[in-house]
Amino acid sequence: MHKIRIDIAHLIAGDFAAGAAMITFGAVLGKINLQQMFFLVWWEMIWYGLNEAICVNFFHVSDAGGSILVHTFGAYFGVACTYGFQPKRASNSINMQSSYQSEMVAVVGSIFLWMFWPSFNGGLSEGVTQHRIICNTVLGITGSVISAAATARILFGKLDMEIILNATLAGGVAVGSSCDLICEPWAAILIGMIGGILSSLGFAKIGPWIMESKVALQDTCGVHSLHGMPGVFAAIVSMIYLCTLEGKGFPADKFYFTDPSNYIEGAGTANEVQNAPGTYNDQAVAQLKSLLVTLAIAILSGLAGGFLCSMDCWKPIHSLFRDDDHFHHVLQKYPQHYLEICDEAIEYAKQAIYEIQAALIA
Amino acid sequence: MHKIRIDIAHLIAGDFAAGAAMITFGAVLGKINLQQMFFLVWWEMIWYGLNEAICVNFFHVSDAGGSILVHTFGAYFGVACTYGFQPKRASNSINMQSSYQSEMVAVVGSIFLWMFWPSFNGGLSEGVTQHRIICNTVLGITGSVISAAATARILFGKLDMEIILNATLAGGVAVGSSCDLICEPWAAILIGMIGGILSSLGFAKIGPWIMESKVALQDTCGVHSLHGMPGVFAAIVSMIYLCTLEGKGFPADKFYFTDPSNYIEGAGTANEVQNAPGTYNDQAVAQLKSLLVTLAIAILSGLAGGFLCSMDCWKPIHSLFRDDDHFHHVLQKYPQHYLEICDEAIEYAKQAIYEIQAALIA
Amino acid sequence: MHKIRIDIAHLIAGDFAAGAAMITFGAVLGKINLQQMFFLVWWEMIWYGLNEAICVNFFHVSDAGGSILVHTFGAYFGVACTYGFQPKRASNSINMQSSYQSEMVAVVGSIFLWMFWPSFNGGLSEGVTQHRIICNTVLGITGSVISAAATARILFGKLDMEIILNATLAGGVAVGSSCDLICEPWAAILIGMIGGILSSLGFAKIGPWIMESKVALQDTCGVHSLHGMPGVFAAIVSMIYLCTLEGKGFPADKFYFTDPSNYIEGAGTANEVQNAPGTYNDQAVAQLKSLLVTLAIAILSGLAGGFLCSMDCWKPIHSLFRDDDHFHHVLQKYPQHYLEICDEAIEYAKQAIYEIQAALIA
Repeated sequence: MHKIRIDIAHLIAGDFAAGAAMITFGAVLGKINLQQMFFLVWWEMIWYGLNEAICVNFFHVSDAGGSILVHTFGAYFGVACTYGFQPKRASNSINMQSSYQSEMVAVVGSIFLWMFWPSFNGGLSEGVTQHRIICNTVLGITGSVISAAATARILFGKLDMEIILNATLAGGVAVGSSCDLICEPWAAILIGMIGGILSSLGFAKIGPWIMESKVALQDTCGVHSLHGMPGVFAAIVSMIYLCTLEGKGFPADKFYFTDPSNYIEGAGTANEVQNAPGTYNDQAVAQLKSLLVTLAIAILSGLAGGFLCSMDCWKPIHSLFRDDDHFHHVLQKYPQHYLEICDEAIEYAKQAIYEIQAALIA
Repeated sequence: MHKIRIDIAHLIAGDFAAGAAMITFGAVLGKINLQQMFFLVWWEMIWYGLNEAICVNFFHVSDAGGSILVHTFGAYFGVACTYGFQPKRASNSINMQSSYQSEMVAVVGSIFLWMFWPSFNGGLSEGVTQHRIICNTVLGITGSVISAAATARILFGKLDMEIILNATLAGGVAVGSSCDLICEPWAAILIGMIGGILSSLGFAKIGPWIMESKVALQDTCGVHSLHGMPGVFAAIVSMIYLCTLEGKGFPADKFYFTDPSNYIEGAGTANEVQNAPGTYNDQAVAQLKSLLVTLAIAILSGLAGGFLCSMDCWKPIHSLFRDDDHFHHVLQKYPQHYLEICDEAIEYAKQAIYEIQAALIA
Repeated sequence: MHKIRIDIAHLIAGDFAAGAAMITFGAVLGKINLQQMFFLVWWEMIWYGLNEAICVNFFHVSDAGGSILVHTFGAYFGVACTYGFQPKRASNSINMQSSYQSEMVAVVGSIFLWMFWPSFNGGLSEGVTQHRIICNTVLGITGSVISAAATARILFGKLDMEIILNATLAGGVAVGSSCDLICEPWAAILIGMIGGILSSLGFAKIGPWIMESKVALQDTCGVHSLHGMPGVFAAIVSMIYLCTLEGKGFPADKFYFTDPSNYIEGAGTANEVQNAPGTYNDQAVAQLKSLLVTLAIAILSGLAGGFLCSMDCWKPIHSLFRDDDHFHHVLQKYPQHYLEICDEAIEYAKQAIYEIQAALIA
């Protein structure tokens, strides 16, 4: 009998998979009911596991923070799913808005994620590599905090809460595939800054433009901007970075992060990174293959999952972006203005006007 | 002179005691004033310390996560206390309700507890045992999250915020007495799931039925459902589990959690668990004795504490479940609807109607 | 070429500097715009770095938790700054008030700070010293929680949310300069309690009296009470404590915190604390010099920063304590009562009354 072993490393691998599912939820939340969510996660985990097995065991991808396997997969799977869930109606819904109180709680959540992101990226690494991952992740997120605030400021003349809360975290995604490789702090900061700019532009411009006007997709929490684009960017960065290493000893000659006594250990670690036999260029090709396979599996399985979930047998929800379809006793706790300004109230008012018009004509 | 040593282990032991006091607060909050709380905690700590001394030093209880010593003690002490504090009036109070905003903050608190529960259960252990505790606690809470959501869904057709926020944590209590013993992941998940179901039924059915209809007790936050019943269940589980170990080598033949090189260490740890000389069955008897003594001391000292606290010299609060009795400047910050719908407003309206009736008759 | 090394210790040193900047923000928030904040932090970091270099390298200050270098510096720099930012108008503003919802989120923040304060104070230490710091910080904050609640209760007859949320943390500041030295738990608790009392009196009495009536300063979040006074107190405590050690072996004869096997290591640690050659009295003098230099640099550079920032070229904000000057889309999310009761509404009403009066006279 084959026994499944469980230890903390396995639980962390499970957390990574749960991360992908939560990112997917960010795209579909408010548009599907509980049974659909349940089915969708079950469906996603099959393809997530398959993709991870291919990328890790066949391509030997180097993806310490899961930017390719978790963030890119979860985001593109989720966005592809939304094709099945009334995207046009969702884009026009007045229910999809945040409140002053929920944004205060969201600030707490963003600080949580900031704090624990270095542990997430470095959770499955050890020693000098873990130290490097933690430093690079902190520097990357610091870069994206600054660039996200600056981008919002330049675009709108003011800060924007949605961008501040989301795009600040994009730096953690952007360095996720190369955080165990980078030895120069400036590179981590620069990658984080570009990730922050990319994500901010995603929230402010690209998202509304691509998602809602051109194609029938609707991304509730903007996971394409926070996880999708920075995830793809992270994979590209890791390729470019690996190409620059070709022919150089890594990281002996420019290992800033620790004191000289670690240099030799660091070189040892580098050999371990290259667990696929071959050169740094071979590893860069492995990154590219992994990205393309991840995108292909995520988008195709996401479309299929969205299609399977959108069939009438699931009884799609009638009221978008509302908790009261799923939660008991929540309606009487809603703030008054949630009920006054909502799709249902507008629909009701329109109906009343039509009836009055009909009565006047008759 | 006998010096009291203080180190991190002692501070953690203090945190456990504070945990028991906080659980007790969950039962009495909103019904007693600050002086009564102060006295009650002082009184509780005497009996908590006595009970811990008896169970640890005489019975050699095995209770890594404190499910017997902390959760069961705190919950039954608190619930017994409430006999003294106007339970009937509290059960009928309209003030005891949560708001949309406070539930959002409560979600943050539940995530906090989820995250730090493995550290709480494993805080005083080391090495392989700590590793096993962390894995079992994570699996147990995962089980209770699923079963709590499912139970709410089956009972009400929708999720229920009170159950989701409370019963999801019951798995951490349910595995608390056996988390250092269990070697099979399925057992941890199953125990967590049963804990979650028990706790959900407690919130939804047993709590309202036992507490408010039959006996004069009122449990503000439902600690009997979250800590009391799962705590007793944890003790029973540890007994059953220990009985199944009798005659077997522990954990050599079925130790899933770590790689084979730890087997021998694991066996060493197991011997330490059995710090009372004797067999696994002896240990199961020790668990039973500890549970019974804990329940007896908690209920009797709780009743006594409630009686001592309910005497008129303490000036009992007149307005139930309101912060403005204890906090400065809070009244003008209350949302308007807190003031419109409250016991005082209803009382005032009733009084006004009586006066009008009296005037009409006269 | 001089390479700047970056490792976790450097990132923690950066966190300390960020801590000073955030404390400063607590004094100026709501009175300056984004560009002014940006300039102010840049300006502060120059003087923070200079002060740290002087105190650490020349005086060999012993300041594990940064009470002198971070808390005292940040608070006095910030308070001195406010001289330039319309302090009288700010003191009279009706906009400066907390809401019920924001205080609930602030409770979460306070619990965060409580939990991570021991790690902050001990982050750059190791071994027995780190253990001692963690125990002393926990005991210190425990002391200040109790004394802050008691002080509020004695002064007002009720607890006060502002004091509970702020002054409870003062114990962590108060033990910050001596937490690696103290070997008696009672000393840590006592220092924490005095810190809590000092901070509570600061919020309740000294702050309003000194700040708003006598001098043209206005401290938005009360950082002078939470960080300023307890920081100065921490420095004085470390001097007194070091003087009592003179001539005694440290900590061999009364080292409560760990078991006897650590005594010898502890003594070794003590020699490291005295990295300045000399006696304990010399170290006490170093603490005094560091405190005075820190106060001088903080106040002078703060006044200069406030002056530079208050020039008209920065376009000072017109609406105090409002987010909508800095954040996009926030105005329509404000709760209704924020807009009804604010400086602008009062100003508008006054203007309308003047116009009516003028019309009646004419």
